[in-house]
Amino acid sequence: MQPENPLDRRPVLLPDLCIRGGAVLTLDAKWRIFDPGFVAIKDSRIVAVGHLAEAEQWPARETLDVSGTLIMPGYVNAHTHISMSPFRGAMEDAPDRLTRFIFPLENAMVRSKLVYDAAMFTIAEMVRSGTTCFADMYYFEEEVARAADAAGVRALAGETVVDFPAPDADRPYGGIERAEHLAKDWKGHPRIRPCLAPHAPYTVDASHLAEIAALAEKLDIPVMMHVAEMDSEHARFSATHGSVLRYLDTTGILSPRLIAVHMLYLDEEDIALAAKRGISVAHCPVSNAKSGRPICPAWRLSEAGVSVGLGTDGPLSGNTMDMQTITSMYPKLQKVREHRRDIVPARTALYAATMGGAHVLGLSADIGSLEEGKRADIQVVALDDFNVLPVHDWYATAVYALQAHNVRDVLVDGRFVLRDGKLQFADERELKERLLYHARQSAATIRALQPAPMHPHHTAGT
Amino acid sequence: MQPENPLDRRPVLLPDLCIRGGAVLTLDAKWRIFDPGFVAIKDSRIVAVGHLAEAEQWPARETLDVSGTLIMPGYVNAHTHISMSPFRGAMEDAPDRLTRFIFPLENAMVRSKLVYDAAMFTIAEMVRSGTTCFADMYYFEEEVARAADAAGVRALAGETVVDFPAPDADRPYGGIERAEHLAKDWKGHPRIRPCLAPHAPYTVDASHLAEIAALAEKLDIPVMMHVAEMDSEHARFSATHGSVLRYLDTTGILSPRLIAVHMLYLDEEDIALAAKRGISVAHCPVSNAKSGRPICPAWRLSEAGVSVGLGTDGPLSGNTMDMQTITSMYPKLQKVREHRRDIVPARTALYAATMGGAHVLGLSADIGSLEEGKRADIQVVALDDFNVLPVHDWYATAVYALQAHNVRDVLVDGRFVLRDGKLQFADERELKERLLYHARQSAATIRALQPAPMHPHHTAGT
Repeated sequence: MQPENPLDRRPVLLPDLCIRGGAVLTLDAKWRIFDPGFVAIKDSRIVAVGHLAEAEQWPARETLDVSGTLIMPGYVNAHTHISMSPFRGAMEDAPDRLTRFIFPLENAMVRSKLVYDAAMFTIAEMVRSGTTCFADMYYFEEEVARAADAAGVRALAGETVVDFPAPDADRPYGGIERAEHLAKDWKGHPRIRPCLAPHAPYTVDASHLAEIAALAEKLDIPVMMHVAEMDSEHARFSATHGSVLRYLDTTGILSPRLIAVHMLYLDEEDIALAAKRGISVAHCPVSNAKSGRPICPAWRLSEAGVSVGLGTDGPLSGNTMDMQTITSMYPKLQKVREHRRDIVPARTALYAATMGGAHVLGLSADIGSLEEGKRADIQVVALDDFNVLPVHDWYATAVYALQAHNVRDVLVDGRFVLRDGKLQFADERELKERLLYHARQSAATIRALQPAPMHPHHTAGT
Repeated sequence: MQPENPLDRRPVLLPDLCIRGGAVLTLDAKWRIFDPGFVAIKDSRIVAVGHLAEAEQWPARETLDVSGTLIMPGYVNAHTHISMSPFRGAMEDAPDRLTRFIFPLENAMVRSKLVYDAAMFTIAEMVRSGTTCFADMYYFEEEVARAADAAGVRALAGETVVDFPAPDADRPYGGIERAEHLAKDWKGHPRIRPCLAPHAPYTVDASHLAEIAALAEKLDIPVMMHVAEMDSEHARFSATHGSVLRYLDTTGILSPRLIAVHMLYLDEEDIALAAKRGISVAHCPVSNAKSGRPICPAWRLSEAGVSVGLGTDGPLSGNTMDMQTITSMYPKLQKVREHRRDIVPARTALYAATMGGAHVLGLSADIGSLEEGKRADIQVVALDDFNVLPVHDWYATAVYALQAHNVRDVLVDGRFVLRDGKLQFADERELKERLLYHARQSAATIRALQPAPMHPHHTAGT
């Protein structure tokens, strides 16, 4: 019998793409950094990562030389409402914004077309700034799923459930049925995962939370909910159950399926309970700070064994949708909260923005780090701009120096969604025009809902 | 006698430049916004600002059409150590960083050539992000003054005074004599103003503070000092005098000449004292947060009548030198501190970053707003990127949406220092190469000073 000719196997092993020459931050369990290094990709997965010298063993169909850059996992944005972008910047700095402004505005303006167009626009903003995966919660969530699929990115799509008629459901809790449809329609999709999204403990009652917990189990999908975010919520459930989280524990919703968003009002007992029930946390430091809320004890949760990811929240809450701002804010606010410079070192922050988010979304086997076998969700970041130089510590640079505009290439499942700064899935001008159309359509409603002009001396254009 | 021919006057009045078509945020006392508007410039000053329709009355030698942009005052960065950029990103997250790391590193590495080259590099980063004026404190400060002059920007140049031998003075307090030279050399310069910069209450004793106060009076220059920043400083002077500020009041240094930087440990009595003595405050929210310090009661100071400006601090403290990040951080941290969404509305934050800084630096008659007679320190910001659209409120957009890369044109004294994204005063590549040279020269010292590798799993390059 003849010995096997190694060349016979080559077509099978031959990577599609080898990205080489940059410093590779793997974010793996050993915190390996290859500087300079390479990442080889076949189909949608990483087949090899290592020192540049070893790249010769992985001849690929295509080679991309990115010397002088940083190669790292795409960001996982653990909480968004991406379709709120037409409203961004409206009614800032106003108290009671959610009930006085946001709910009425949404009921007046949110339609499926707006949700799709705004989602495409915001996905472009996120991709341009290095995000490859996001966890969304909104109305008409099937449109967000469609947009994410069309753009080629990865998403958790959560249909909102509330106890009042919503833009996409004419009766209370209509979102539950819509979520069931969403779950059936997208079952098994390689990049889009449907999700149940009860809005909050104060807009979804205990019996419906129990129903949602059971349905999530049956459909085998995650649950995403705002938890312990509001003063009034905290006051109400503290009075009846000691805390929001202890109240939720009576409903059956606290399980490893739950992505609890915000988590601001927690005592020691709540932190222990969160760890015991195995829930995950999506921490939104910029959005929380902008609304004058307490700082989430994210570092304490993390120390207690709870998975913590980072989110931008919606464009009306956090404004920009780049994860660079969020990743940099996370350690700053934790240091302020604990009055310690040494906690949440830079690499811990970068972990939260990548692997941490992957854990929170239940996707850590597939994404979040650059390792053999994982899906090729990768960003290549240019280091030649004034805000970045010099580099003395890769993690400090990644967390405290990078800005959205430094991102050069982004791949999801091994396919470019941004290449050399150019969006690959849509025409930028068209996305912007559609967004501006919906913003203009909403302008009169926004003005009517604002109780007083924010800036009375704004003189009208001529 | 013949009537005067208006044409005879025209050459005198003819503006050099008319920037037109963008929305003009004047930041003047009436908060006027002209949308669309224009700004006309002659020599170094603004001769007219108003609605676009009125621009016809100001035919100029050159017209720059910037339709679809935002025209606003350049940022005033109220506190920097710009020449620390070669060290940026080193020794992050370490406690006692100043004494264990920064002072020894500076004594080993800081020389006049480094100060000049690093200053030019950082001025480029600041100009690219819309800053037209900055207040600096460092060693060899004459090199920072020279760099700012060469670049064509506006600066307060503060020579550091400390009670130990410094990189530029072989005996304690040598900085005082150096500052006297600086003051004489730059007296009357239209853009560069010398300044005395005692480092801090714990590195400059009471008698030298008194000497500095008298010298500043004699030379008619400002004083800039870190005040109430450190835990140990707060503990020490609270024990002897009740607070850092009350101690300083015994030295004579508290006067309208003083720019007090940081101001973290203040009680109600201190806030009243600050207002009574007429001192100004340079608030550095990002730098303070990164070091796990208390949040400066900036909003309270402001309410008490103290002028508050915003600063990046040095690149080793705040990392990036863009004022967009700082201006956005200011309201967020104040809202967190006071647990109120409605305080420090967006326009107040933008005011602090422009007019507030101008007041703090004693330059409010000349810069900080776009008004007739003021110096033409202007930035033009593009609004066509994904992070900015749509615009519902100009101030919210300016504060919460803008990022450094949106800045398109920057003028100081009516002259372009950045034009259509291109630096006008130096070759970018050369600036970067020089910065990297100094960063490489410092790398071994940085490694030696780090008590343990920050990231032990960093595998060396092949």
